[in-house]
Amino acid sequence: MSPTTSGPVRVTVWNEGVHEARQHPEWIGEIYPDGMHGAIAAGITEHLGERAVVRTATLASEPDHGLTEEVLAGTDVLLWWGHAAHEQVSDEVVARVHRHVLAGMGFVGLHSAHYSKIFTRLLGTTCSLAWRNEGERELVWTTDPSHPIARGVANPIVIEKQEMYGEPFGIPHPDEVVFLSTFAGGEVFRSGVTYQRGQGRVFYFSPGDQEYPVYQHPDVRRVIANAVVWAHRPEVERLSEEQLGCTNPPRRF
Amino acid sequence: MSPTTSGPVRVTVWNEGVHEARQHPEWIGEIYPDGMHGAIAAGITEHLGERAVVRTATLASEPDHGLTEEVLAGTDVLLWWGHAAHEQVSDEVVARVHRHVLAGMGFVGLHSAHYSKIFTRLLGTTCSLAWRNEGERELVWTTDPSHPIARGVANPIVIEKQEMYGEPFGIPHPDEVVFLSTFAGGEVFRSGVTYQRGQGRVFYFSPGDQEYPVYQHPDVRRVIANAVVWAHRPEVERLSEEQLGCTNPPRRF
Amino acid sequence: MSPTTSGPVRVTVWNEGVHEARQHPEWIGEIYPDGMHGAIAAGITEHLGERAVVRTATLASEPDHGLTEEVLAGTDVLLWWGHAAHEQVSDEVVARVHRHVLAGMGFVGLHSAHYSKIFTRLLGTTCSLAWRNEGERELVWTTDPSHPIARGVANPIVIEKQEMYGEPFGIPHPDEVVFLSTFAGGEVFRSGVTYQRGQGRVFYFSPGDQEYPVYQHPDVRRVIANAVVWAHRPEVERLSEEQLGCTNPPRRF
Amino acid sequence: MSPTTSGPVRVTVWNEGVHEARQHPEWIGEIYPDGMHGAIAAGITEHLGERAVVRTATLASEPDHGLTEEVLAGTDVLLWWGHAAHEQVSDEVVARVHRHVLAGMGFVGLHSAHYSKIFTRLLGTTCSLAWRNEGERELVWTTDPSHPIARGVANPIVIEKQEMYGEPFGIPHPDEVVFLSTFAGGEVFRSGVTYQRGQGRVFYFSPGDQEYPVYQHPDVRRVIANAVVWAHRPEVERLSEEQLGCTNPPRRF
Repeated sequence: MSPTTSGPVRVTVWNEGVHEARQHPEWIGEIYPDGMHGAIAAGITEHLGERAVVRTATLASEPDHGLTEEVLAGTDVLLWWGHAAHEQVSDEVVARVHRHVLAGMGFVGLHSAHYSKIFTRLLGTTCSLAWRNEGERELVWTTDPSHPIARGVANPIVIEKQEMYGEPFGIPHPDEVVFLSTFAGGEVFRSGVTYQRGQGRVFYFSPGDQEYPVYQHPDVRRVIANAVVWAHRPEVERLSEEQLGCTNPPRRF
Repeated sequence: MSPTTSGPVRVTVWNEGVHEARQHPEWIGEIYPDGMHGAIAAGITEHLGERAVVRTATLASEPDHGLTEEVLAGTDVLLWWGHAAHEQVSDEVVARVHRHVLAGMGFVGLHSAHYSKIFTRLLGTTCSLAWRNEGERELVWTTDPSHPIARGVANPIVIEKQEMYGEPFGIPHPDEVVFLSTFAGGEVFRSGVTYQRGQGRVFYFSPGDQEYPVYQHPDVRRVIANAVVWAHRPEVERLSEEQLGCTNPPRRF
Repeated sequence: MSPTTSGPVRVTVWNEGVHEARQHPEWIGEIYPDGMHGAIAAGITEHLGERAVVRTATLASEPDHGLTEEVLAGTDVLLWWGHAAHEQVSDEVVARVHRHVLAGMGFVGLHSAHYSKIFTRLLGTTCSLAWRNEGERELVWTTDPSHPIARGVANPIVIEKQEMYGEPFGIPHPDEVVFLSTFAGGEVFRSGVTYQRGQGRVFYFSPGDQEYPVYQHPDVRRVIANAVVWAHRPEVERLSEEQLGCTNPPRRF
Repeated sequence: MSPTTSGPVRVTVWNEGVHEARQHPEWIGEIYPDGMHGAIAAGITEHLGERAVVRTATLASEPDHGLTEEVLAGTDVLLWWGHAAHEQVSDEVVARVHRHVLAGMGFVGLHSAHYSKIFTRLLGTTCSLAWRNEGERELVWTTDPSHPIARGVANPIVIEKQEMYGEPFGIPHPDEVVFLSTFAGGEVFRSGVTYQRGQGRVFYFSPGDQEYPVYQHPDVRRVIANAVVWAHRPEVERLSEEQLGCTNPPRRF
């Protein structure tokens, strides 16, 4: 009952880190000298300061892609960016992340993470969409300015250059649609949606292609920081694997 | 269990009929010689033929705005267009329509009906929105092409000139969001949403300003005809006023 | 972004106060010497202490049933108990409360408030149900133990004697079903449901008939205190009447 | 647009078929001489007659558990019963069924199928629950008597002996909660819930343990037959694997 006594939110920003390799044909080092994970982490720290402790992890950086049981047990909210290497993420790690989300860890899927193993596992559908990469202007509108994830955010957010993501988006009916985007080409997209899965809160936010400096955008950074706060459930105890299973109560009532 | 044996769907298209009066400063007779209700009714008949029996009613045409108990009892789906005269609709008629929707009558709210007494009564919220009337192009996208209301409809529907309706739209979380519109000015709107209220199915569809010939548009007509079929529940018995109230079952189980 | 700096939640417990009159044939003074509103208020204070400032109001106590513009403007969360005198609540006060909920005030409807003018206005449906008053045991189960309203609450809550409220409950699809009750007679009821209406959070909780000391029950008190915290939105600015209306943005994007 | 011209609904009832083997320690042949799948299939035929063509398949009966691409392509609605052998269902078959559901095939999960690979894959959560097998009376109440799956069904359905399934049920917020069950022991369960996944309609119905003759119960049979009709989408074209993926539209609007 006393959120004021809880410590800072422990955030892990996961990025496959493929476009960050200097030898990659679509190297993004000029836009993101610290990688997209670095920019995302910096944006969170910018907004939350000491209220967050942020670490990063990438596909190849460490064993288990940096997502060991210990790391996840110490993570309140996990952010996920992936695009070119979804298939390289091990099924074992996906199952582990999945379990932690159901047990109470927050999860924020970013941009092309819509097609990641973990996101489609959480949602149960294709999560496919229409796309076109021509650097179009995206306007991100909020349907509910009172939503905690939209707090303090311009309405609309104007992103000058972005990949277009359009409907139909193959997701289940969202619990909430916080943001709707329109594109210069005329398309529309449910760009900010929430779900509860088990005890975990899930938010998907589509802005953020690797080719454009979207994670430098002040409003995009604010949305992500807000989402971290929203997905964090300091008063909810993480369930053990056993507690996630069925129970067999004796007759009592 | 046998929809094939039920008779045609009985449709009543209600229109306040104010812009149709020749003396009105914004007379629309050149676009709609038979009134908007006439055009809407013609579109339904065009698509459903003998599967629908369509009548129209207007604010001043008959006692009770043409919406007597007898008319409503004989209506499977009621369509509603209103704009300038919401306040002239009697509270008694609103209560009657409300009761019939809860009892099982379908209801389709069109365009500025978002602010009608009956629609806000059914939804419980302001239903306010952003608007701008500059004859902008509207694109109506479907989020779920398999939805019965989207059947056979172009995706997107292109409406060359329309009043802009934009978010935030002050409605409860919809049961389903079938259509999302974008406008030349960049805005977005949840332009096709469904709700169940009691036994009644409610659909709101925003295209359709009086200044533009939107109800002549083939795809708009198809959406409305689809919505009539969707809102019609031939196998659901209309509840009486008494059946809508509380019950007091004796102890039995 | 800093809930810790906001002041205490300002709570108003409204009760029609009819059963509290000594001359009432079903006088409840022995169970509730301070009225049901007194017991509800005491339960909130018991749990929230200085984190809440609680006042009460009744139908006849003051002008406007104690719910003036000033009182509502100073209320973060309003609780409502009514049963015998729903029709005596003035339409003007109902419209005022409705506006404040849409503008951001929390609302908690208790027990027979399901049939109050304000609750049916917010929900848009009959809100009718099945009932039987035989002092049956009610078990209140939570479907989501991680929900903030269920925090620290026994699962199930055991209420030895209660009026039975049963399905079908004539409400729209809830945003969330937090509690489901079963009764000794075998019935079931969605006894704890949430809705968002405009910027306001709405919770309905069915336990609490006037004939049984339900508002003395420790777990019932905890649920209500939790609901107050949940419905309070300290970071959401209350909207003015004008802000609740439509807007007419010039063309910009 | 013309459901009357579509042929009969093609139904496949899948059952792991383990308890049906005479050598099984919990052989159920006296209750279900034709297996549970036989009883379920008979119940559907009893209600739908020539409007349905029903086949059955079991884990070991045929290659791919009888669920080849050809069988699924010719199945409008698949029913699933599993309990002891979830892990024996091949991942390849699960992926194939999953794809067909997203593409438009209806899916009805029965009883212990809550823990099947395909059901948890569709829902994305644990789907765990509380259970106790003491042959308790179950009452199945409908929250919405107008729902097509509840049509013509007693309210409540009384099942004299059943395994108890209780909350919390680890599922996402359902699109609709059609049935709620109470048990003699006092528990409650969301026993009939619907979801849309892609173009497919999913219904889960909990009554039906192998030890009790639940699939002989007239009302249970009617619910299942209703669910088959509801999950069948004759006007929705099954999507190909390619159509389920992302699209890359050229700039057009």
